[in-house]
Amino acid sequence: MTALIFDMDGVLVETVELHFAAWRQIAAQVGKTLEPHDLEAMRGLRRDDCLRRIFSPRELTTYDLNTYSAVKDELYLGALRDIEPEALITPGTVAFLEQARERGLRLGVASSSVNTFHVLEHTQLIEHFDVIADGNTVVRSKPHPDVFLWVAGALGVPAHEAIIFEDAQAGIEAAQAIGAFVVGIGEGEAARKTAWYAPHLADIDLLQLIEQAKNRETSLPVINPL
Amino acid sequence: MTALIFDMDGVLVETVELHFAAWRQIAAQVGKTLEPHDLEAMRGLRRDDCLRRIFSPRELTTYDLNTYSAVKDELYLGALRDIEPEALITPGTVAFLEQARERGLRLGVASSSVNTFHVLEHTQLIEHFDVIADGNTVVRSKPHPDVFLWVAGALGVPAHEAIIFEDAQAGIEAAQAIGAFVVGIGEGEAARKTAWYAPHLADIDLLQLIEQAKNRETSLPVINPL
Repeated sequence: MTALIFDMDGVLVETVELHFAAWRQIAAQVGKTLEPHDLEAMRGLRRDDCLRRIFSPRELTTYDLNTYSAVKDELYLGALRDIEPEALITPGTVAFLEQARERGLRLGVASSSVNTFHVLEHTQLIEHFDVIADGNTVVRSKPHPDVFLWVAGALGVPAHEAIIFEDAQAGIEAAQAIGAFVVGIGEGEAARKTAWYAPHLADIDLLQLIEQAKNRETSLPVINPL
Repeated sequence: MTALIFDMDGVLVETVELHFAAWRQIAAQVGKTLEPHDLEAMRGLRRDDCLRRIFSPRELTTYDLNTYSAVKDELYLGALRDIEPEALITPGTVAFLEQARERGLRLGVASSSVNTFHVLEHTQLIEHFDVIADGNTVVRSKPHPDVFLWVAGALGVPAHEAIIFEDAQAGIEAAQAIGAFVVGIGEGEAARKTAWYAPHLADIDLLQLIEQAKNRETSLPVINPL
């Protein structure tokens, strides 16, 4: 039994611009304009660190961080609701998920986003998945592999037998650490250094992928201490 | 919904002496006698490292390690079959598991042992559990928390909401890293430094434990990056 586990943002949906728009609005409220290089730098950062960057040199209290985080979520989810699902879903994703389901594969989402369910419901992608884990499922976020392990358990497959689809460096590291077969998605540099690379799910031949994942040499042995 | 996740060796069953007996037999075949301090030192070691210690200064090849590991498993499982289940199960364990099931708790085993299923079947403890993970389920063994995360996923509860029963330093570290409430079991020093300590499951008031686990301050926040 093969299972496919997907990161959400950058893999199933393209929400970067929505996040950027929310950050721009927050910055505008304190009279700042975010330049493209600011936004690019914020891409890998946690929400709190994005806020610190925007408000710098002002120090933010925990109360500030919680408040502005909530504002950011509101702006982001508001923008999300105004966008047609088709504009959010990455190329070929629905067809790919349908094909995987037809072949009886188990499908999971392992995302660090607290908005995972909102996004998957809005796009109606939610119906394709057996298991969904979001930013509340585990304490430690990627590059810790915790969310992938949890989803693998929920799908009932050893994590090193899963095929994991990731676009981001931290997620790729996490998936590789637990011996999973990693498919890099998107335009990022990290994504190209994986066992299998594709700009979008549309570009992947599912049967060929499964075959390659099955035949690979597992680089990490299972360690049996007793 | 609370879930209870148990390490097996040293928590549900006491198999240390069986492992020692197998090591003694292997050592005897090469003319060595293992002293109590040898056995104590081998307790925390992986199987391969135990073999290296016994055969030292001779260097072992991968083939040697695989062969002697298989011999050790044979000796261990042979000795296991000759022992009455009652002599293996730790005090109060069956009653504790029954009580937990009656309260509708979800129960899992997260062990690094490759013999987990053999031991749980022989002792008939297997029927008490919803989920069992062994040394083949994840690539990285404790102190990596992988096996606990996998079992939490399979039980459908966030790992930081689970109560984990552990006797060994590595397992306790692993469980604490993911924010779980850890119950230390046994006579070890590490076990006494947990949120709740008991020599055996027999000594635990389940309702009081659940109450305390529920009311604790979670020391690790869930980190939401987006």
